[in-house]
Amino acid sequence: MRILGIDPGLRTLGWGVIESQGTRLSHVANGLCQSDGDDLGERLLSLHNQVSEVIAAYRPDQAAIEQTFVNKDGAGTLKLGQARGVALLTLAKAGLPVGEYAPNRVKKTVVGVGHADKGQILHMVKLQLPGCAPKGADAADALAIAICHAYYGGTQQRVLKEVRA
Amino acid sequence: MRILGIDPGLRTLGWGVIESQGTRLSHVANGLCQSDGDDLGERLLSLHNQVSEVIAAYRPDQAAIEQTFVNKDGAGTLKLGQARGVALLTLAKAGLPVGEYAPNRVKKTVVGVGHADKGQILHMVKLQLPGCAPKGADAADALAIAICHAYYGGTQQRVLKEVRA
Repeated sequence: MRILGIDPGLRTLGWGVIESQGTRLSHVANGLCQSDGDDLGERLLSLHNQVSEVIAAYRPDQAAIEQTFVNKDGAGTLKLGQARGVALLTLAKAGLPVGEYAPNRVKKTVVGVGHADKGQILHMVKLQLPGCAPKGADAADALAIAICHAYYGGTQQRVLKEVRA
Repeated sequence: MRILGIDPGLRTLGWGVIESQGTRLSHVANGLCQSDGDDLGERLLSLHNQVSEVIAAYRPDQAAIEQTFVNKDGAGTLKLGQARGVALLTLAKAGLPVGEYAPNRVKKTVVGVGHADKGQILHMVKLQLPGCAPKGADAADALAIAICHAYYGGTQQRVLKEVRA
């Protein structure tokens, strides 16, 4: 199964694609989608187009995205929310099932502790995906989210199915 | 000039289309785009499709959207941000120039005071757009945003042009 992980952000959105076969994980690709300028609509459209291109290029079967941490900075939450909304829309448009994971669950899965720093995540992502060179901290985070989905995604889909049934 | 006003929201997104000829305004159409269910991606996709249909049906020349009020409720801000991001993306994808207006500027323009309530907005929207029957408070707000753009849009576009030049 091929999984696309997304670490949402307006200026920089990290993405990472991994292949999961049973318990074996391997790296496919990773990168950053970036947007800047004054026109928010244009920036969101650019992110949408870039994520669409990643989906077209790597054809994932499923996707995973970080649950956004809501903090006291309302303006920051709003910006992140706008980028996250566009990412979710793009995944839904491509028909991908999406898993959502809290940041500390991702860290706990990949590093073993819920409050790991960026350096530890990068280290463990490289260890679990041999040969992988993340193109920045946001791309490493996106790969960590994809790894988390590889471990929990199946369970989550089964639970959701049962809850809905 | 035909203007599409949008009052963003995840559960209910209000929209209103008006025609502005010099200082004369007239009502074209208004309505609500709604989404519910557990799957956030599907909800955002549904809003995107509904707003796209409104644009295809009424072919506005410009659009206007409310600047989101950032409050202490982080989860609410995030939800609204996600819906607003999708609305902005949909307008950008259609190539529409978008004006953004703070809620109290919209109220001041339409009602005359910055802290008008929903009833006053509805009353003044009906007065300024004869024959118009808004399909709810969110649709009335969207029409008020479009009216605000009719008054300020030209100025805003000129100022932006000069700032960028």
